[in-house]
Amino acid sequence: MLTGVFLPELLGTAVLTLLGCGVVANVLLAKTGGFGGGTLMINFGWGLAVFAGVYVAYKSGAHLNPAVTIGLLASGNDLGGDTAVKAVVYIVAQLLGAFIGAVLCWAAYRNHYDEPETSAADKLGTFSTAPGIRSYGWNVVTEIIATFVLVFVIIAFGKTPTQLGPLAVALLVVGIGASLGGPTGYAINPARDLGPRLAHAILPIKGKGGNDWGYAWVPIVGPIIGGALGGLAAHAMQYV
Amino acid sequence: MLTGVFLPELLGTAVLTLLGCGVVANVLLAKTGGFGGGTLMINFGWGLAVFAGVYVAYKSGAHLNPAVTIGLLASGNDLGGDTAVKAVVYIVAQLLGAFIGAVLCWAAYRNHYDEPETSAADKLGTFSTAPGIRSYGWNVVTEIIATFVLVFVIIAFGKTPTQLGPLAVALLVVGIGASLGGPTGYAINPARDLGPRLAHAILPIKGKGGNDWGYAWVPIVGPIIGGALGGLAAHAMQYV
Amino acid sequence: MLTGVFLPELLGTAVLTLLGCGVVANVLLAKTGGFGGGTLMINFGWGLAVFAGVYVAYKSGAHLNPAVTIGLLASGNDLGGDTAVKAVVYIVAQLLGAFIGAVLCWAAYRNHYDEPETSAADKLGTFSTAPGIRSYGWNVVTEIIATFVLVFVIIAFGKTPTQLGPLAVALLVVGIGASLGGPTGYAINPARDLGPRLAHAILPIKGKGGNDWGYAWVPIVGPIIGGALGGLAAHAMQYV
Amino acid sequence: MLTGVFLPELLGTAVLTLLGCGVVANVLLAKTGGFGGGTLMINFGWGLAVFAGVYVAYKSGAHLNPAVTIGLLASGNDLGGDTAVKAVVYIVAQLLGAFIGAVLCWAAYRNHYDEPETSAADKLGTFSTAPGIRSYGWNVVTEIIATFVLVFVIIAFGKTPTQLGPLAVALLVVGIGASLGGPTGYAINPARDLGPRLAHAILPIKGKGGNDWGYAWVPIVGPIIGGALGGLAAHAMQYV
Repeated sequence: MLTGVFLPELLGTAVLTLLGCGVVANVLLAKTGGFGGGTLMINFGWGLAVFAGVYVAYKSGAHLNPAVTIGLLASGNDLGGDTAVKAVVYIVAQLLGAFIGAVLCWAAYRNHYDEPETSAADKLGTFSTAPGIRSYGWNVVTEIIATFVLVFVIIAFGKTPTQLGPLAVALLVVGIGASLGGPTGYAINPARDLGPRLAHAILPIKGKGGNDWGYAWVPIVGPIIGGALGGLAAHAMQYV
Repeated sequence: MLTGVFLPELLGTAVLTLLGCGVVANVLLAKTGGFGGGTLMINFGWGLAVFAGVYVAYKSGAHLNPAVTIGLLASGNDLGGDTAVKAVVYIVAQLLGAFIGAVLCWAAYRNHYDEPETSAADKLGTFSTAPGIRSYGWNVVTEIIATFVLVFVIIAFGKTPTQLGPLAVALLVVGIGASLGGPTGYAINPARDLGPRLAHAILPIKGKGGNDWGYAWVPIVGPIIGGALGGLAAHAMQYV
Repeated sequence: MLTGVFLPELLGTAVLTLLGCGVVANVLLAKTGGFGGGTLMINFGWGLAVFAGVYVAYKSGAHLNPAVTIGLLASGNDLGGDTAVKAVVYIVAQLLGAFIGAVLCWAAYRNHYDEPETSAADKLGTFSTAPGIRSYGWNVVTEIIATFVLVFVIIAFGKTPTQLGPLAVALLVVGIGASLGGPTGYAINPARDLGPRLAHAILPIKGKGGNDWGYAWVPIVGPIIGGALGGLAAHAMQYV
Repeated sequence: MLTGVFLPELLGTAVLTLLGCGVVANVLLAKTGGFGGGTLMINFGWGLAVFAGVYVAYKSGAHLNPAVTIGLLASGNDLGGDTAVKAVVYIVAQLLGAFIGAVLCWAAYRNHYDEPETSAADKLGTFSTAPGIRSYGWNVVTEIIATFVLVFVIIAFGKTPTQLGPLAVALLVVGIGASLGGPTGYAINPARDLGPRLAHAILPIKGKGGNDWGYAWVPIVGPIIGGALGGLAAHAMQYV
């Protein structure tokens, strides 16, 4: 389970988070080449972060996201046996990988993180998500809807014979980001939000502010509910 | 016909409309992450909305659009028998799905819809299409041409052996949006316009204006004519 | 030869030109949804215009471009026999198709063409190409280099087994536009430039200016030379 | 080895560099069509430059980058025998090709290079990379991380059966550029940086400044270390 699940999942989520946080750093941090590059660039960056991560984690089936692991369970997938243990291994690896990816992103952008022109909120924003309008209930609703689409459509991929492989997931993430990322920054993945938020809390960054722990439960609870609902719906629709 | 046509078509069109209206909401509504994200982002968002919708509706052949259903009929496709009944089931499912998708989009962006900075016209613009220069005759011409290309090329896909599957349709919609979406906002799908317009009429949105029913026939009539012509041309060219 | 070459090539080039001129119209003409949409949108629009056109013309091999026809001849391809006659049929169909596509683009954007805010140069720019810095010799060099890449790489596609089909050509055109389109607007296709220029000369457009016939030979001669060199190089490299 | 490795690698890297430097020229040089086109356009331009280059060099396996050649060696690949000699042939061909590609890019944009509005730094920036914040140690770190991802994921592609071929590499390069290109302009390829820098030193360009030789070792050393580490990691993960 170490080389078949834990390591691939950890490395895949690390690459996903390195590239995902990286594109936001490129757009938000001062003096980068991509400063002000816009939302579509962020959407493509996150989609292609998933693309790379899926290849890296092909051995483990590339969940890279606790909401996907939970969604697969809800859809009736037993993860190849040892279900409960394996689910824990997946999720621990994802969290650890996301933390490592965020640290690597910080290393790649180290001097840019220390620039005083960038606000503390934007520095945090390169790690974890934040809502445009703070309203925990509706923020959870947005994350539920977006993650439902992610998991429901990923499972639907399985029945349609194409050769797109990881590209299909990547494009789905580009699309969800462009279409449903507006209100909450589309965590749609508890590991992708919590791991980097922990990294932000620990890393030495000049002029950094708080970690907004008050919001941290939203990108955990919303995606878990949405992923479970997506798995149940996919099961009901017999996509499995 | 319930699980083979109605439900897949309803769910596919709901996902299509949720993501499609969503990207416009992200770009137009105040305080979103994607505010001012630009036309190319809208084009990709709509294309990937179709991408996701096609996977969800693979069982029904993923028309997701009355103009496609009518275009297939015009090309000589009998929809697998029970033609007239099936065509009605397709179209009713598409309309209902588009309505539900628009309601979900509103739920995802709920607080942003209530912001006073966004004009009533822009709020309506996240639901249904509107022309840049109002001129019903020429607006219909634009929708005919754009929908002709959609249906004609989709049917042409059938004869060319590639493994792109839903990606080909998605990219075609990105292209039609970028190239022919300028004058009317490229409905090219009566359900995608009418369903959300009904949702706009019913939903509680602060500061919303009228539903522009005077224009509503254009994105119905234009796409139906264009789709039928596209199907006839595809038949004449023996793409079927 | 009518249904196997002439009609597919004519219709494919018409779709290519309709969508290609369309995206420029969307970005340059006043009061469109895509006004000011930027260069990347134009690059994707033209690439996806080729994508759609290739599907439409699959029966004829989808040259859609005299420089491709000439490049294939230069590479040793005999177009399946009757070489000289067939080459003429291809090129006549391409020119006629490009003219028709430009007329359809005008019809789709009709009222936007008559707006007085748009300059005569921009109106012409939606039809045919123009250099950023007029200098016929260097403008020809740019068109030679860009068309060489187009034809050389298209022929190289043939030897590499992938399932991308028309998508590979589309992405190549996006890339050439982004990378080599800066100086001359990347005609890289004599039909795509001459057909629409003729349409501009004939169509009733308020406030239109001249057709810039003085430049018209550059996007004919440059692509022909570049296409022939690309075909010869592909032959020398044994890509054929 | 001439037609199987040297020529394909030289031509592939020339096409890669022509299109790659070209998109930066289009965005940075005055009076081009793409002036100010933005970072995402540069990211797509470089990704599609790799796309085209890979097809051109399919016979040699399309390394196009000394960091890839070194990464493959580190992963245990012997390049089909004659390892040391072949590695030298690959790298010499890559350097020569990158030089030629940069000269062709200059030829395509010749008059734009001579415009006085563009700064000397931007003119150099169309040839070779430069850091946003000069700090050689951290700049090397950024190039190591970005090139590690490039080589590690490229080798991971080999184990996953999809039909994307060169498109997967292209999209990976788009993603790395968007996500990790901010601090140093993502050389991730010593040839891509050194070849064009030499071309800049030699070519007659009005108003050009120095070649920034003080920085030139960073995009050589960083990618070599990152590529080697990527190859070792891919070997450890049994992606080979």
